[in-house]
Amino acid sequence: MFKEAVYHRPKNNYAYAYDEKIIHIRLRTKKEDVDTVQLVHGDPYNWADGHWQTEQKPMVKSGSDELFDYWFATLEPTFRRLRYSFLLQGGEEQTVFTEKGFYDEVPLDDTAYHFCFPFLNSIDVFQAPEWVKDTVWYQIFPERFANGDSSLNPDGNLPWGSTEPTPTNFFGGDFQGVIDHLDHLEELGINGIYFTPIFKAHSNHKYDTIDYMEIDPQFGDKETFRKLVKECHKRGIRVMLDAVFNHSGYYFKPFQDVLKNGIDSEYADWFHLREDKVVTEPVPNYDAFAYVSSMPKLNTENPEVKNYLLKVARYWVEEFDIDGWRLDVANEVDHAFWRGFRQTVKETKTDAYILGEIWHDSMPWLQGDQFDAVMNYPFTNAVINFFAKKKIGLEQFKNELSHVQHMYPVSVNEVAFNLLDSHDTPRVLTYADGDKRAAKLMYLFQLSYEGTPCIYYGDEIGMTGGEDPGCRKCMIWDEEDQDQELFSFIQKLIALRKSEPAFGNQGRFSFVDYGKHVLAYEKKSDEQSLLFLINLTSDPISIEDASPSRIVDGDQNSKVKGEKATLSPSGYLILEKK
Amino acid sequence: MFKEAVYHRPKNNYAYAYDEKIIHIRLRTKKEDVDTVQLVHGDPYNWADGHWQTEQKPMVKSGSDELFDYWFATLEPTFRRLRYSFLLQGGEEQTVFTEKGFYDEVPLDDTAYHFCFPFLNSIDVFQAPEWVKDTVWYQIFPERFANGDSSLNPDGNLPWGSTEPTPTNFFGGDFQGVIDHLDHLEELGINGIYFTPIFKAHSNHKYDTIDYMEIDPQFGDKETFRKLVKECHKRGIRVMLDAVFNHSGYYFKPFQDVLKNGIDSEYADWFHLREDKVVTEPVPNYDAFAYVSSMPKLNTENPEVKNYLLKVARYWVEEFDIDGWRLDVANEVDHAFWRGFRQTVKETKTDAYILGEIWHDSMPWLQGDQFDAVMNYPFTNAVINFFAKKKIGLEQFKNELSHVQHMYPVSVNEVAFNLLDSHDTPRVLTYADGDKRAAKLMYLFQLSYEGTPCIYYGDEIGMTGGEDPGCRKCMIWDEEDQDQELFSFIQKLIALRKSEPAFGNQGRFSFVDYGKHVLAYEKKSDEQSLLFLINLTSDPISIEDASPSRIVDGDQNSKVKGEKATLSPSGYLILEKK
Repeated sequence: MFKEAVYHRPKNNYAYAYDEKIIHIRLRTKKEDVDTVQLVHGDPYNWADGHWQTEQKPMVKSGSDELFDYWFATLEPTFRRLRYSFLLQGGEEQTVFTEKGFYDEVPLDDTAYHFCFPFLNSIDVFQAPEWVKDTVWYQIFPERFANGDSSLNPDGNLPWGSTEPTPTNFFGGDFQGVIDHLDHLEELGINGIYFTPIFKAHSNHKYDTIDYMEIDPQFGDKETFRKLVKECHKRGIRVMLDAVFNHSGYYFKPFQDVLKNGIDSEYADWFHLREDKVVTEPVPNYDAFAYVSSMPKLNTENPEVKNYLLKVARYWVEEFDIDGWRLDVANEVDHAFWRGFRQTVKETKTDAYILGEIWHDSMPWLQGDQFDAVMNYPFTNAVINFFAKKKIGLEQFKNELSHVQHMYPVSVNEVAFNLLDSHDTPRVLTYADGDKRAAKLMYLFQLSYEGTPCIYYGDEIGMTGGEDPGCRKCMIWDEEDQDQELFSFIQKLIALRKSEPAFGNQGRFSFVDYGKHVLAYEKKSDEQSLLFLINLTSDPISIEDASPSRIVDGDQNSKVKGEKATLSPSGYLILEKK
Repeated sequence: MFKEAVYHRPKNNYAYAYDEKIIHIRLRTKKEDVDTVQLVHGDPYNWADGHWQTEQKPMVKSGSDELFDYWFATLEPTFRRLRYSFLLQGGEEQTVFTEKGFYDEVPLDDTAYHFCFPFLNSIDVFQAPEWVKDTVWYQIFPERFANGDSSLNPDGNLPWGSTEPTPTNFFGGDFQGVIDHLDHLEELGINGIYFTPIFKAHSNHKYDTIDYMEIDPQFGDKETFRKLVKECHKRGIRVMLDAVFNHSGYYFKPFQDVLKNGIDSEYADWFHLREDKVVTEPVPNYDAFAYVSSMPKLNTENPEVKNYLLKVARYWVEEFDIDGWRLDVANEVDHAFWRGFRQTVKETKTDAYILGEIWHDSMPWLQGDQFDAVMNYPFTNAVINFFAKKKIGLEQFKNELSHVQHMYPVSVNEVAFNLLDSHDTPRVLTYADGDKRAAKLMYLFQLSYEGTPCIYYGDEIGMTGGEDPGCRKCMIWDEEDQDQELFSFIQKLIALRKSEPAFGNQGRFSFVDYGKHVLAYEKKSDEQSLLFLINLTSDPISIEDASPSRIVDGDQNSKVKGEKATLSPSGYLILEKK
């Protein structure tokens, strides 16, 4: 056995409380190196006859990535505390993996050898709002969704969709436009909107805040926003706003004061100045987002700044009843700030959702004291590279997703924000080089995977667009120019999440093997077991032992006859199994 | 190369801010598998010609344990942010280890491949009080240190040292006794006292608190305690108290009320009751420390309880100017509580020290938001098993210590609470089966290792005693019965920590190889390099190339002549090197 590959360290994704009673334990071993793992566990204080008293529970192999197998077990210890080790069997070999290293036999003369889960304290349990698991998000970039009130058009506003978007042009999207088109969203079936920033700002993307307490006048006023939230709530749609707390905009009053007065400004400590006089060109002499002088980094360690931003966080929840905050550049802001942020937000609205923008491994922010979720770009990359760019094969796709799955607790995966694209990336259909069949399979996968999917505005009617600013085109409202068939397809998938118990987050996801030409996975809940079969080739594929109890869905040319299923080229079937 | 053995995950002990400017990066590889590691790093936003711009820095092998080598590098990134990967060379093979896996070349087309240290925010830096690094602790079990005021003797008090300690007998140790003997401690050279609990309690050990706001009457009153702290401070000695917040004692008023009124008690939610009526026998039907019905677990998630205990934490710091808290059974209390505790304590006294009692891997408590240190029992076990019990050889001893070293950040190691024994274990000399030479080498090692050493009362004058209650004997004050030579030896070592720059925590510790019969290690500071040589055998050992610039210390029979050093049996030399 390859002992060097065996990994476990309590907390994070390896040992965590799933809820107030259940503890999840995971172990990593070298791929195909270990045949069975027994979790040897006991109450830390349970001794008899001079020996620590233990039980054993077999662990199941929950997945594999390129190099490793992952093992999983759940426990519900009576006294909510646990010591444990792992008994590994591989071929003729047996070894016990403990906190102190490897032993031939389970050492029972001292509990100090063993890994410790000292006590399951409820308050430390990672707990995202329940509603998030059942949410399908829809991302709106407000400047480009719909212009419903031309009286608010900014200077130099261009006619809707009259030209390609640039980094600086305006088309007058606003709240009234969103309100006018809520029927479209209700029809699609989404039940959460994530708005990119709406606060007073200079640019069309509004990530350069001027005033965190004011709505940008091009979008409307506070009354219109209040109405928008109410209209959404009426339709069962939650509303999430974008908080840009890492940096302010250039025209944020405190920064203007600092530009003028340098170190003597009363706001000098609101930023990270490196010299007495503030210089913006050629490079800023203060900390900024990247090297962008117009986005000065806020000093969130300064209690004044922290209090101000927490007031902002509270205000929009309390006054306008928003349901969540998406946090821009969340990884560059201090953890202490986010802990305070979580406390403030959850005190104001217990079931508010907190979503961080982090593109890399985010475990340190997902321990229960900071975020409920992060934008799951590792998921995005795997799906895009597999279905759209075809840069990776089936094996690697499975490995990558399995890797991300095992990077985080199950409870984190259930509310991960799974996007295929956003205002920061090309659109799905553009990624897929116009291949609509590939795009449809991506939506099928996204909407049936674990976590909470998000659809970027316009994707549902077949909009295209490359990197920013290309992906920020005006929404197409002329029905003749909309891909209605794609709309119906996504609408159907969203409906299936609601009608089929195992389709959404009640179903546990796992890959199954139907050869190298079929992407196959199961979703299993207590009530239902669904098998998803996706033909990755341009030829029909027959599957002999499909034998479903019911055909839940499929493309129009894929069929089941008796035990045999036939998948059409790039076709799919969703089968309910006994 | 064994890719499966390569490990790095940002934060914790692998990537952390050492201070407000410096980032430490560590990597783990299979033992003796990799020849060199280059840290490939750059600012996340620094692009030119379509490529991410990087530099390389060689990592040094900072140590090894049984299975792994550890690699280390420090960086001081201009903009306090970092993306990085590892370029590994082993034999003819080369590979790049990134967050996304292994590559043949460093991928420079996207920073998303690379590990991320998004921003060094000062407030998140793990920072223990500066004074702790230079502290030598002395642990006092107040009931057994000295009886200075017989008027306070509890009922049934026994004459000092008249008989062996039992779990229930009393000898009348008190604060006046401590005050009377501060000269002894000053002479020894210690500069911190850790008192096991002093609050009103039922037992002789006082871990069963009756009233957290009152001094136990057998020890004195608040005025005597205030005087004790003042007298300590006058002599440059800090004072740390023991907070037993995991559970209360049986006679704690709220628990008495719960015993009487069950679920109807106004304190019902102060504990974890499982049934309406409270039953203590044969097993408690409420959560307790272990299964001890007289130590009911406190519900620290209840804001009332939390506020009460935080009031206690603040009170003794604010009113009596104590310098630190040692936290009993700290691992079983919720993290949220400890975060609040840290905030409260540090607000009251910025440089107060917070020490958790945790016997296992403690990384989750040592991330800067909870504790400054834990009781370093893994260190204890290694030292006892090597020097005293001789259960492990030199190689394993080095492996175990190196393992503990690399489990935590350097900043954590510098303030680790390194004990050889305590009121919960046999005494050093008893562990060593009376072998005083072994005991002396243990003190030499403990006092010259990194971290902050603690001496258990009476060890310095050669007291013995087995497991509790044996280790809780009355302090011997009759000078004729004290081992004065041992006292002088420890006194000398403590003095060397102050006089030699590299002896204490200014010196970085590393093992060096002088063969299997000599334990050899270096301490290096900017000013000084010290070599420690300890003869592990009963024969003299010659070392040819010692060539010190100065002999700092040694046992009386070990000598240096020119380049050659001779270590006497079980002897040692401390040499200053050029």
